[in-house]
Amino acid sequence: MRNDRIRNKELFNKMMSAEEASNLIKDGMVIGASGFTPSGYPKAVPLALAERVKKSGKKMKITLYSGASLGPEVDGAWGEAGIIAKRLPYQTNAELRKEINAGNVEYLDMHLSHSTQYLNYGVLPKVDVAIIEALAITEDGHIIPTTAIGNAPAFIKNADKVIVEVNTAKPMELEGMADIYIHENPPCRKPIPLTEVGQRIGTTYIECGLDKIAAIVETDMKDKARSLAPTDEVARKISENILKFFRKEVELGRLPKNLLPLQSGVGSVANAVLYGLCDSEFENLTCYTEVVQDSMLELLRCGKSNLISTTSISASPEGFEKFLEEIDFFKNKIILRPQEISNNPEVARRLGIIAMNTALEMDIYGNVNSTHVMGSKMMNGIGGSGDFARNGAITIFTTASTAKNGDISSIVPMVSHVDHTEHDVMVIVTEQGVADLRGKSPKERALEIINNCVHPDYKPMLLDYYNRALENGAKHTPHILDEALLWHSRFQKTGTMKK
Amino acid sequence: MRNDRIRNKELFNKMMSAEEASNLIKDGMVIGASGFTPSGYPKAVPLALAERVKKSGKKMKITLYSGASLGPEVDGAWGEAGIIAKRLPYQTNAELRKEINAGNVEYLDMHLSHSTQYLNYGVLPKVDVAIIEALAITEDGHIIPTTAIGNAPAFIKNADKVIVEVNTAKPMELEGMADIYIHENPPCRKPIPLTEVGQRIGTTYIECGLDKIAAIVETDMKDKARSLAPTDEVARKISENILKFFRKEVELGRLPKNLLPLQSGVGSVANAVLYGLCDSEFENLTCYTEVVQDSMLELLRCGKSNLISTTSISASPEGFEKFLEEIDFFKNKIILRPQEISNNPEVARRLGIIAMNTALEMDIYGNVNSTHVMGSKMMNGIGGSGDFARNGAITIFTTASTAKNGDISSIVPMVSHVDHTEHDVMVIVTEQGVADLRGKSPKERALEIINNCVHPDYKPMLLDYYNRALENGAKHTPHILDEALLWHSRFQKTGTMKK
Repeated sequence: MRNDRIRNKELFNKMMSAEEASNLIKDGMVIGASGFTPSGYPKAVPLALAERVKKSGKKMKITLYSGASLGPEVDGAWGEAGIIAKRLPYQTNAELRKEINAGNVEYLDMHLSHSTQYLNYGVLPKVDVAIIEALAITEDGHIIPTTAIGNAPAFIKNADKVIVEVNTAKPMELEGMADIYIHENPPCRKPIPLTEVGQRIGTTYIECGLDKIAAIVETDMKDKARSLAPTDEVARKISENILKFFRKEVELGRLPKNLLPLQSGVGSVANAVLYGLCDSEFENLTCYTEVVQDSMLELLRCGKSNLISTTSISASPEGFEKFLEEIDFFKNKIILRPQEISNNPEVARRLGIIAMNTALEMDIYGNVNSTHVMGSKMMNGIGGSGDFARNGAITIFTTASTAKNGDISSIVPMVSHVDHTEHDVMVIVTEQGVADLRGKSPKERALEIINNCVHPDYKPMLLDYYNRALENGAKHTPHILDEALLWHSRFQKTGTMKK
Repeated sequence: MRNDRIRNKELFNKMMSAEEASNLIKDGMVIGASGFTPSGYPKAVPLALAERVKKSGKKMKITLYSGASLGPEVDGAWGEAGIIAKRLPYQTNAELRKEINAGNVEYLDMHLSHSTQYLNYGVLPKVDVAIIEALAITEDGHIIPTTAIGNAPAFIKNADKVIVEVNTAKPMELEGMADIYIHENPPCRKPIPLTEVGQRIGTTYIECGLDKIAAIVETDMKDKARSLAPTDEVARKISENILKFFRKEVELGRLPKNLLPLQSGVGSVANAVLYGLCDSEFENLTCYTEVVQDSMLELLRCGKSNLISTTSISASPEGFEKFLEEIDFFKNKIILRPQEISNNPEVARRLGIIAMNTALEMDIYGNVNSTHVMGSKMMNGIGGSGDFARNGAITIFTTASTAKNGDISSIVPMVSHVDHTEHDVMVIVTEQGVADLRGKSPKERALEIINNCVHPDYKPMLLDYYNRALENGAKHTPHILDEALLWHSRFQKTGTMKK
């Protein structure tokens, strides 16, 4: 493998075991890990570190930066070993979530595009060690990334030392998919020259250099991606409702026939929407997004789309195997960009992205909570949804109208936490229907949402709240503050939002 | 005046009285008015319409679009006459505010940069008649704007008919300050070529054409700008705190010596900050903002800055007279752009704007309410703050730590409305001090805010809430939902947030 994967012989003497490499990581350090939404993250070294800490019984606390969520070998193992003091900008691991909500880990839930600039502007403490999964290292010591770019370029740039995990489970055919464009900091920043989804504007490697590389570890561990839940009836209905909305927009001349570049969050609803597009009349679609899941690969496979820009390919284990078998087909259809570019407001506004993301709960005025269960408990994080939602052309949030077997209404009088404000949320879709909030005042929005999106079990309760709020005081955004969060308190006390 | 102001003789026969022109406006129409933050708005025709409706006793309902707030001749007179059914995207008139909060006017409080694209994308009903204040009309029927651009280019482009108010109270020396750059809609949008505040990328006139002009009205009415409240002690302290923050950032190498382009909201705190910069060691400052008030003119006058990009010049009546006297000095130092460009996320992110805006209230986790008093009552609107806050390099929100003689704490357990989320708010400044929230988890933010920014009268109460919330349940963003809005309810019932 050596000459193919490590293209400068000088680097051979930096090869070592994961255990040895893990010794570079010391208590109090800031670690930057490659990877974005269980894809392209380091595995061997993080596992070795967790193992070492557990065995030694010594306490260790580090700050962990990433692109987005990492696999269980990092967030899970480190969370369990109590290594993580602080974590940013996103995570989805159940073990670590527990630690966050127990107050043991300080978690910064950030706009993903902000995370890069916080680092580059020197606002965040700098990276001591970056651990980067690579396909290969070039003769000049630059990194050829695997299946995700995320914040790897920024970590490498800002790190003292870089540990490279060369992963032979990722075939060399992936080389060439990356397009690494690096922004200067203001005031020297130039326009990002992207005017089309498929444009290549950078290099296929991430700049690093021989000197920064402190260790090279060989591994063949696969990404621990999650298998997808099968599409259920609710997701299918949401997908149908979105397609109906798209058709209407095209009919009204507000969207081109091939729509605008699609951004889609992860999860079963997102998958259902994309599968729905595969079976639809829409053609020549493009995607400008942060994660490619199975369904987006399918969109290429079925010929409905020819171009996807993303920062990560994160298919299910089965989906990834299939992807690798067909790599020649996919290779020129997917471009992997740094998350500062995939999630950049400049590009989102220019291309006019259709942003489709999932809400945890919404309120009758169109505020969306994407992150906090009952106002306090972190679910996952905002991820890139805010980067796209404020700056796209159309911003859609989806949710099933109820949760917990109907004991929670996903649409409430007032959300217990706001991630997307009434100013950003344009269209709401549940299995019940579509609420188009654009051009509507708060009162108009309330009726649109209650009439079109709320589950019948909760419709009378919400109408009752709204009508009484209308009589209560100021009538711009009618509320009764004593009752606004009562549905949540009731759920906390009785296990249901129902009276 | 004719040949100077109306440069095509064919247009002379379209000149008429304001009363005659107002007849073009019919019940049910959508009207787009030039103007941004009492500057450059039409006056004679709106007043004539209000007069006519009042005299006739006939009901009339129209939808009114603008750039931002308009003067009393429109929002005041039309609000009072009950003409406005719907209003967007921003307003500040007391009379109209009353109508909005009484539920008589549907008000859409929008990101200002969104308003342009909602119109251009065909999401908002199209403009029937645009009423545009002009310095002059070119030979080709194009409009030379006065002291604000706002959404005038989009209104003219999307209108069936245009009424032009040629205002001779605005001297011809203003010609040349405008720089009108028009965006295509996606998928044809190109990068906005701005890489420096002072760059000119467009024309000095707004495209219209002879045919669209339905009426020309001559007027010499002055903008009814508001005089500024004198800077008080609280504003001065906030200004000092911001300057201290800037110094620290420069020291740490996180900001260049001449800072980054400044965006500043309106009001006495904003003015105090800019006056503070006049008296500071900072030099070669630039501003990329939406409104230029007296203090920003002073920044040019004192030589601390040489370049301001804005969409509106909105000085006090005294300040504006002085500005006109020195127009030769100012002319090449101020560029007037459409609000789609002044507030564009692409430019805000690229230039790395320092966004400084005022909050109505904030909570201990860094969520900001800019618009709603006690959750329901509209104050003014979000304006451009969201355009800049999400996409700038540094986002600062300021407020006095208390309001209503101390009966309201501007920092509360949970805001009653969210305009800027925890993900966007980077720095909070009150007269008490500075809370730098960047890189901090919610719990770390809470202590930073309580310790640095809260008024001593409320500090123990907030600490008590926070500490009890910490024991209450999930510890990512500790809250007690039954109490989260209790301070507001208490104020509504007792007139004070104090126990």
